[in-house]
Amino acid sequence: MTCNDVFSPLYTDMYQITMGQAYFLNNRHKKRACFDYFFRKIPFGGGYVVFAGLGDLLKLIEALHFSEEDIYFLKQNGFNPEYLEYLKGFRFQGNISGASEGEIVFPGEPILRVEGGMLETQLIETLLLNMLNFQSLIATKASRIRQSAGEKQLSDFGLRRAQGMGGIQASRAAVIGGFDTTSNVYAARQNDVPAAGTMAHSFIESYDDELTAFQKYASIFPDNCILLLDTYNTLKSGLPNAIKVAAELKTKGHRLKGVRLDSGDLAYLSKKVRRSLDKAGLEYVKIVVSNQLDEYVVKSLLEQGAPVDIFGVGTSMIIGRPDGALDGVYKLSSFDGEPRLKISENIQKTTLPGRKKVLRYLNDDCFYADCIASSGEESPDRMIHPFQKEKSLELKGKKFEQIYTDHMREGRILEEPAGPFQIRDKVYKRLQQLPSEHKRFDFPHIYKVGLSEELMQLRDGMVQKLQEYL
Amino acid sequence: MTCNDVFSPLYTDMYQITMGQAYFLNNRHKKRACFDYFFRKIPFGGGYVVFAGLGDLLKLIEALHFSEEDIYFLKQNGFNPEYLEYLKGFRFQGNISGASEGEIVFPGEPILRVEGGMLETQLIETLLLNMLNFQSLIATKASRIRQSAGEKQLSDFGLRRAQGMGGIQASRAAVIGGFDTTSNVYAARQNDVPAAGTMAHSFIESYDDELTAFQKYASIFPDNCILLLDTYNTLKSGLPNAIKVAAELKTKGHRLKGVRLDSGDLAYLSKKVRRSLDKAGLEYVKIVVSNQLDEYVVKSLLEQGAPVDIFGVGTSMIIGRPDGALDGVYKLSSFDGEPRLKISENIQKTTLPGRKKVLRYLNDDCFYADCIASSGEESPDRMIHPFQKEKSLELKGKKFEQIYTDHMREGRILEEPAGPFQIRDKVYKRLQQLPSEHKRFDFPHIYKVGLSEELMQLRDGMVQKLQEYL
Repeated sequence: MTCNDVFSPLYTDMYQITMGQAYFLNNRHKKRACFDYFFRKIPFGGGYVVFAGLGDLLKLIEALHFSEEDIYFLKQNGFNPEYLEYLKGFRFQGNISGASEGEIVFPGEPILRVEGGMLETQLIETLLLNMLNFQSLIATKASRIRQSAGEKQLSDFGLRRAQGMGGIQASRAAVIGGFDTTSNVYAARQNDVPAAGTMAHSFIESYDDELTAFQKYASIFPDNCILLLDTYNTLKSGLPNAIKVAAELKTKGHRLKGVRLDSGDLAYLSKKVRRSLDKAGLEYVKIVVSNQLDEYVVKSLLEQGAPVDIFGVGTSMIIGRPDGALDGVYKLSSFDGEPRLKISENIQKTTLPGRKKVLRYLNDDCFYADCIASSGEESPDRMIHPFQKEKSLELKGKKFEQIYTDHMREGRILEEPAGPFQIRDKVYKRLQQLPSEHKRFDFPHIYKVGLSEELMQLRDGMVQKLQEYL
Repeated sequence: MTCNDVFSPLYTDMYQITMGQAYFLNNRHKKRACFDYFFRKIPFGGGYVVFAGLGDLLKLIEALHFSEEDIYFLKQNGFNPEYLEYLKGFRFQGNISGASEGEIVFPGEPILRVEGGMLETQLIETLLLNMLNFQSLIATKASRIRQSAGEKQLSDFGLRRAQGMGGIQASRAAVIGGFDTTSNVYAARQNDVPAAGTMAHSFIESYDDELTAFQKYASIFPDNCILLLDTYNTLKSGLPNAIKVAAELKTKGHRLKGVRLDSGDLAYLSKKVRRSLDKAGLEYVKIVVSNQLDEYVVKSLLEQGAPVDIFGVGTSMIIGRPDGALDGVYKLSSFDGEPRLKISENIQKTTLPGRKKVLRYLNDDCFYADCIASSGEESPDRMIHPFQKEKSLELKGKKFEQIYTDHMREGRILEEPAGPFQIRDKVYKRLQQLPSEHKRFDFPHIYKVGLSEELMQLRDGMVQKLQEYL
């Protein structure tokens, strides 16, 4: 397996390519289309989603083209020669607007708007969903763990349990959500994030005794040594040996950086370890814990007063347990200048027609409600519940922000995408503006997202017309 | 983001590289080490795991080397110049033996044995876990869905909900477990699997009416047309329009390939649709269903007599819901010729020391029990429960198989890895040998895995010695 060309346009669902041929041969491939990206359900039973993956996505879309091998493969699969000739010169030349990466977003609201020719806007669907759904899932999970961890350091230890190469993207999203370092060296290089990690049990077991193993490691990394304490017995063996090595390092002018606990009761052990370290004059030695951590365990440890400095979080963060996927979709909202929608027997699954935007209303600089409006509208004075018309919210006189900015115009990225730490700063800032009742883990308050009257009338009118036609 | 060099050795945890330096500078990097790969818990509450990912892994390990950029990055991170010089020429030159890809495996038994110098065997740990844990998870999930689907066709629709690039590996593993086609064109090419897919709702919505959309699509793909029925209303609109188009195709000597149901009650709708198609003389038109399928829904649909021909399965398969990860680990079992183990207060987490093999005992050609023995042993007459010594099982006179074969010697692959369909054949064959009580979804019977007396004595003796030392 090589992955030199993973981001060939073949990284998509087959139906995008078959539909492309049908558009092309029916000469509809350049008709203007508009698609919305949105999701329906917040994962983890939470109250918000951190929007992530956009920077990666934009770069991939800008570079997207069919290689000779791609075309050859499609030819073997029986595609039309003229269509393939067209694909040889294909480049995405559409426009992309929407929320910035790191924005806090909510169910049902269009987060991204993609406009361009029907073929090109359709072709990128799978890539867009694959990138945004996953990174937003992981950034959201990571931000929940950050919420529990307060100011403590968070390190991503997930690669060994990641879903294959998805681990690379997960490590980036982890930083966006609130992580500080990663064990994944490849991801560290790619995203300019510090790589962290020192030793495994196998290192210690390869020596006849633990103390020798510690000393040997410390001799090589005297200033970057985190000793793993639980290979034999944390309190009876690992801890006293680490204290010995720390003392030896001290006499040579070095400082043991930390100790790591990877099993047992982490609250109990971390307190015992802290006390012994402090008694030995090793207040500067940090305590790292790992082993099946998630936002709930981290919260519980800190509530119990566990003196932990660094949390290493693996499986649960890197795969976004327990949900594992964000249900984001990409739906046609306009074609050839006319609004379109997908109806459903369930009004909650009926899509919103036409070119739209999202306005975020504020209350004392805090998020108050998001209103979805048609893109040409002024700021509405009132918004209506999308499925319960009798519920509406007065917006008159409220301050608001435009959530949408332009990201790509005619296939070119407008502004160099930010790095993950820069995006993380935005996440932190925006989460401060989100009232705490939306951030709690248990039954968070539902953030209000509504429609402008104009948009609702457009939708309901179209639904009625379609129902008459049936 | 590019991923040209994802499979640089930097696709690993930082501690592998720091430990490598410590081994190297302490001149222990070439000491012989032996590691075992095994997992502890079967996902999905099931009774077995399908071992997958080995072919990909072996190719990656054989090709593994540090590029100039890799070395440069490590230099910037302060690694030792002599060590980096050594890494420049690094190639994995160890041996790998164990179960073949597609084997049915069980908790606690070593599935793979990696032997070689301490540095090289340590360095590949993360890559090995990343590949094997994920593909085995997905192959196992896919095989459960195959069990439910019987002879029906299964198509992977998962890329849009996959965990980033993990979708590529998941599509391969899906075939190994029992899938027939994939929507992921990239994965189709890479794994030589048929790509499948025709149209989305957006295609239909882009036309003013559904019938025209169907006709236009059918004119382009008269022999490969699966019409999506639920854009407006499955029974009132999609079905009659599809029948009209099928009749038109028929008069021109073509056959409508199928119709797809993507919402609503799939049991009810598929029956109605089948009846109408048959009444119109369209017995050959296949029914495809999709929408939140998993092994339970597929089973239920078929139990209800739903006349479905093809199941399109997305999220639940591609991310291995609800577990999302297999807990496989990689543990040192011998160093410099001496057996090693990792003890734990929990005997179930204490590892098995020394170079080992696995013997599978048979009963009338069906799997009876697996015995883990030291690699030099003859076939034992009796095996003992790994954690409850009072339980043992007579093996005398039973037929048995060696589960282990050699996969790699001195860094070279011994036999070209099989393609996913070939591996799938093995899975099917082996699953037939697994008694049905281990295959049922609810509280499956636990397959017996035990230790030879020799191995148990080795383990217990070492545990005792270590406990005395503490």
